[in-house]
Amino acid sequence: MIVLFTDFGVEGPYLGQVKAVLHRLAPRERVINLMADVPPQNVKAGAYLLAAFMRDFPKGTIFFCVVDPDVGTFADRPVAMQLDGSWFVGPDNGLLDIVARRAGKVKCRGITWRPKKLSATFHGRDLHAPVCAMLANGKQPPGRVVKWKDQHGWPDDLAEIIYIDRFGNCMTGIRAGKLKRSAVLKLGRHRIRNAQTFSSVRPGQAFWYENSSGLVEIAVNQGRACYELRVSVGHTVSASR
Amino acid sequence: MIVLFTDFGVEGPYLGQVKAVLHRLAPRERVINLMADVPPQNVKAGAYLLAAFMRDFPKGTIFFCVVDPDVGTFADRPVAMQLDGSWFVGPDNGLLDIVARRAGKVKCRGITWRPKKLSATFHGRDLHAPVCAMLANGKQPPGRVVKWKDQHGWPDDLAEIIYIDRFGNCMTGIRAGKLKRSAVLKLGRHRIRNAQTFSSVRPGQAFWYENSSGLVEIAVNQGRACYELRVSVGHTVSASR
Amino acid sequence: MIVLFTDFGVEGPYLGQVKAVLHRLAPRERVINLMADVPPQNVKAGAYLLAAFMRDFPKGTIFFCVVDPDVGTFADRPVAMQLDGSWFVGPDNGLLDIVARRAGKVKCRGITWRPKKLSATFHGRDLHAPVCAMLANGKQPPGRVVKWKDQHGWPDDLAEIIYIDRFGNCMTGIRAGKLKRSAVLKLGRHRIRNAQTFSSVRPGQAFWYENSSGLVEIAVNQGRACYELRVSVGHTVSASR
Repeated sequence: MIVLFTDFGVEGPYLGQVKAVLHRLAPRERVINLMADVPPQNVKAGAYLLAAFMRDFPKGTIFFCVVDPDVGTFADRPVAMQLDGSWFVGPDNGLLDIVARRAGKVKCRGITWRPKKLSATFHGRDLHAPVCAMLANGKQPPGRVVKWKDQHGWPDDLAEIIYIDRFGNCMTGIRAGKLKRSAVLKLGRHRIRNAQTFSSVRPGQAFWYENSSGLVEIAVNQGRACYELRVSVGHTVSASR
Repeated sequence: MIVLFTDFGVEGPYLGQVKAVLHRLAPRERVINLMADVPPQNVKAGAYLLAAFMRDFPKGTIFFCVVDPDVGTFADRPVAMQLDGSWFVGPDNGLLDIVARRAGKVKCRGITWRPKKLSATFHGRDLHAPVCAMLANGKQPPGRVVKWKDQHGWPDDLAEIIYIDRFGNCMTGIRAGKLKRSAVLKLGRHRIRNAQTFSSVRPGQAFWYENSSGLVEIAVNQGRACYELRVSVGHTVSASR
Repeated sequence: MIVLFTDFGVEGPYLGQVKAVLHRLAPRERVINLMADVPPQNVKAGAYLLAAFMRDFPKGTIFFCVVDPDVGTFADRPVAMQLDGSWFVGPDNGLLDIVARRAGKVKCRGITWRPKKLSATFHGRDLHAPVCAMLANGKQPPGRVVKWKDQHGWPDDLAEIIYIDRFGNCMTGIRAGKLKRSAVLKLGRHRIRNAQTFSSVRPGQAFWYENSSGLVEIAVNQGRACYELRVSVGHTVSASR
């Protein structure tokens, strides 16, 4: 299974073009779009989202991970990171940092392979997708072993809003296991307490809970938290523990 | 074929997470996303949309139907409803009411099976998806036969706007076969007559027609009906028959 | 491989209904959604987008191409156009004009086959999808050879904005190979020069480049070009060559 994790958007031709390349080069492999709306060019939010969502996938999954504001520059070096039999392919820009750090020990290859035709702006289609297909076909993509190096020194848990979903619910980069149930979140002038389900608070009230991927998430019963609390991706949260 | 009918949104990780579970547990089954943008948490609109769209699918289809504002509470009991060899799996909250009523006789199982790990907010992924996979694999999910019970006593046809599409066209919950061609729809201060195609009315004019799923739908030639008529999901329509 | 190129939108039931028909009639064929958000009912923009994106697909691909404002009228005649072993199926309204012109010689069949049940508004699902399935199954759909006829006399390259993507980048219908690197684009009061990557201009500056499908595209480094330049689909561009 090849899993796509990108900021390409569900609209436009980009996902379809990547799927076409994967189908041509690895026709038997199932391709599943996990998420195409990582906040645009937001590598940091992407790193924490990926680390949360990858938990649900079986060993042997190949993750195509592309959020790449520096595409086409020397800053963008493709890597393939191996972890428990799964592969993470993407640019070496920090997107894989949180996955790597939580794993402890990872094997990492700097990919030296380049396609005959490489566009300046779509390495996802031209380079990362063929590398995923090689891995799916059981081949090592040309490259050399490199030592994993944390890019940014980001915190283990990110006390920011990293994604807002269709319902207006606001995901943070904090793992719920790191907070006590009694913890109170501060978001602007709001004080937000824990509740386990939507129906256990009154309509219009904000609360936090462990979402289905293990992250602290903020919602408003029968309302849209992002509007009621006036927050967007990047807003800082603080937690009393 | 497993068909997804939800309010999860096409964005975010939710559809991908469900597809990953289905692929892991029923790898040979084709999964098709029918609709992921049922109006959010709107079980009533969902019930009429599902009843209209399910007509086009062959016998043996497994429908994964999740619009579930009460997820994580006792009000949310999973059911699997059998109908002409097809299955409808979802919460017992009224979402399947219109399908069941139009079918006349259905077999229904209350699902007692629970996964080892059940999140508070994503039973679609953790519970309904594995149940669909069991059915796809020819297994009866653990449960007991229950008598179908209509939840809400909703009308046979719903004289409301239940969905607005990309073109601004407004679907109602009224089956077109229930109206004469001469019927005039009242929507606020507007009086709307029937026409068969867009080009048979002048630009800017509203008209109603039988849409491709058999529902009464309202459009404006070369315009967006939802803007021109200032309507949104839930607006009441009345029809002279 | 059947490739979908439409203005149906990624939301709503339309893509899912087409995929269900294709799966029922050609169950072994992989179906890939290339693009579902061609600007609504914009046949002209669609014609140039299709000609740019089809380049990446292998011979033998079957393209399902539906942007069809005149659906349900006599103006809408289905055609199947053959080109290097690939097929393009869609309405005969100009959507295939640019592909056909660039190919030079094409074979074209006017499709006379009609399904038993043909809705007034969704020929994509009822007519074009079954025709694609016939071709996928190696069958000639009933029809007769017709001579290809250019519908509109559109230019070889269209100096307009034809698509705006998630990042606010603005695609034109001009092939980059037709411009010198020194060319300056005029868009309203703006003068826009070429650059090869985002990072080679300062933040906030607009530039043009060859996008990953060979088209001239306009972007703003660390900004959204469509907002900064106040443009939308249909805006005219002019180029000094």
